[in-house]
Formats: sequence, C-alpha cells, structure tokens
Amino acid sequence: MANISFKPGNMLYPLPVVMVSCGDAPENYNIITVAWAGTICSTPPMVSISVRKERHSHGIISRTGEFVINLTTEELTRATDWCGVKSGRDVNKWQEMNLTPCESFTVKAPGIAESPVSIECKVKQVIELGSHDMFIAEVTGVRADDRYIDPATGAFELENAKPICYSHGKYYSLGRLLGKFGFSVKKKSEKKK
Amino acid sequence: MANISFKPGNMLYPLPVVMVSCGDAPENYNIITVAWAGTICSTPPMVSISVRKERHSHGIISRTGEFVINLTTEELTRATDWCGVKSGRDVNKWQEMNLTPCESFTVKAPGIAESPVSIECKVKQVIELGSHDMFIAEVTGVRADDRYIDPATGAFELENAKPICYSHGKYYSLGRLLGKFGFSVKKKSEKKK
Repeated sequence: MANISFKPGNMLYPLPVVMVSCGDAPENYNIITVAWAGTICSTPPMVSISVRKERHSHGIISRTGEFVINLTTEELTRATDWCGVKSGRDVNKWQEMNLTPCESFTVKAPGIAESPVSIECKVKQVIELGSHDMFIAEVTGVRADDRYIDPATGAFELENAKPICYSHGKYYSLGRLLGKFGFSVKKKSEKKK
Repeated sequence: MANISFKPGNMLYPLPVVMVSCGDAPENYNIITVAWAGTICSTPPMVSISVRKERHSHGIISRTGEFVINLTTEELTRATDWCGVKSGRDVNKWQEMNLTPCESFTVKAPGIAESPVSIECKVKQVIELGSHDMFIAEVTGVRADDRYIDPATGAFELENAKPICYSHGKYYSLGRLLGKFGFSVKKKSEKKK
C-alpha cells in the first residue's frame, strides 16, 4: 500500500439515501431523493438534509418549513433513483412511481406509505454553504409500518425492511451483520443474552 | 400493514460509522467513533460531525479546529466499536487497537493508516444543538490507499475495501450492488456500456 492524495472532494461513504417528501397540500406534494442527509443530535432528535437552491423541493421546504424523511428499501431502489434525477416541476413523482402520500402525525408534509419509516421534521435553521443549503431540523414525529415489528419481542426490526445505502455512486443492500454496538467490550457471559 | 406512531427519535438509518482522528501532536492524538456524520455540501466539499461536549475529542477538535474522518471496513469493525465506547482520557486508542497515525497533507491532525480513505477537515462553524455540538467543516484534503485503485481503469473502488455502515445499533457489511446512480433513466443502449 501507498498513500496517495486526492483532490478535496466528497468521499464520505456509505451514506443514507432517503426520499424526502414535502408540500402542504396534495397539489404541491413533491419528493426529492437526498444522500446528503444525517442525524446531527440525539436530544432533541435532530437531522439535516442538504438541497441545492435550484431544486423544486428547495422552494417548497423553504416556504413550509417542514419535510419528511422516508427510509428506502431494496424494493424502492428504482423509485429512489428516479426521484433523484427527475424534477417535480415536470412530473408528478407520486403517480409515476406509484407512491402513496400518507398523512403525517405532526406536520402537513405527507409521508410515503410504501416506506417502512417516515421521519417528520420541522426546520429550525437554514445554512447556505455553497452549492447546497443545509436544512437543520428537529424530529417531531415518526411513522413506522407495523409489519416490521417482531411479534415475539415487540422490537422494530428495520433490517427486515431490507434498507439500502449509497456508496460512491452506487446503491447497495445491507450485507452481513458484523456486530452490535458495544460488542467489543462485552464479556462472554453478556454475549449469550 | 398499519401505520404506528413512534415517539420522536433517531431513526434515520443506515448511517456511516467513521473513526475521527484529531490532535496536533503525537502525545494528544485521539480517535472517536462517530455515526452522526455526513456530507452537507458538494462545492465546496463539506461535512459535519456531531460530538457530545463531554467527549475527550470534543475539547481537542474545539481547540485545534481540525479533524480527520477515516472510513471504516469489515476488518476495522472491532476497532470502530471499541473507539466509540472507550475514552482517550483513560486509554491510548492507537496502541490498544494497533492503529497507526499517518501524516495528513493539509492538517496537523493525523489520519489512520489502516483506513482506506482519510478525509482532512477544517472546522468552519460549531452549532450547539443540545446533547451534541455539530462541527461544520470544509474538506481540505483526501488521503487514499492506492491498493483500492483498479489498475485497469484507474478508478478508486471503495467497495474493494469492504466498507461498513451502522443501522439501528448494528454494524453491517455492504451487500449486493442494486444499481448505479441514474440507472432508472438510462436507455438500454447506454446500459450496455
């Protein structure tokens, strides 16, 4: 191995790839796919998404101060890609991709019913960074599809929804489970639990 | 399926899980594992990491204004978990995990030689959010391990480094390639390329 220098660029991968839904009335509901998204605070629960000013959803989110992050799955891979390439100015992404808006608990923006988890967000701050504006938001509600709740344990098992991620221009399924948080310091007796 | 309401919380997954290295002299070099990390802007390339005030690395990054994001791999899973649980106040994480600091191109903070990619960052802004402070930073340099460059194409193939991600308390390898960005709008003739 030898170290080489790349020009400064976006090399943080894998990243989430989520469908962000927005709008405050059915006639302006839209979807934008975002990989520049992340969790930024635990308490209160907060997230950020970064969106180019020229994107149709940028105007909607700026005006309404709300959006919903919908997790994506293997089954939704094509819709995820398509909603990141097309513009809501030209097409109705819901109709074209057979996605169904569903009512949110805490915001006017709809969730996507076909997504296993919809995270409802209210914008707290917008930071202009350059090509992208970062919307910093608080999570105000979460809708989940109960088919991913394990009836035996009552736990929500996201992996059963077959989530996907985005790495350097490619979409991937999740692979092998490598360990749970804290596994490196667990004693053998605890591991059995 | 039926929709259920969860209390507002951190449900955005999968996420990256990276080892962030920091410090400006060998005696204070440290590593902290972070999943609250993401890309926030393309031009200029910018990232954010969120760190609790009480973490040892919080003080170092606040003082030096620099950090390095090191991508993690299947081989580094145990070190990744361990560096997220232990504190640099108590242990030397480099020694305990057999990790090697390597000189960065643009910052005093070292990279981790065992990582396939080290992203050198300079802090531009710190935002206090609650449990976590968000460090907003510009990418000033990238070190990559040339063994992941495909000799035939010259392209850097991150997947050959076997990257990992973090989803709802668990570490996973990447699984199947599901498509490349833009695949949903490619014509058949283009797909053959």
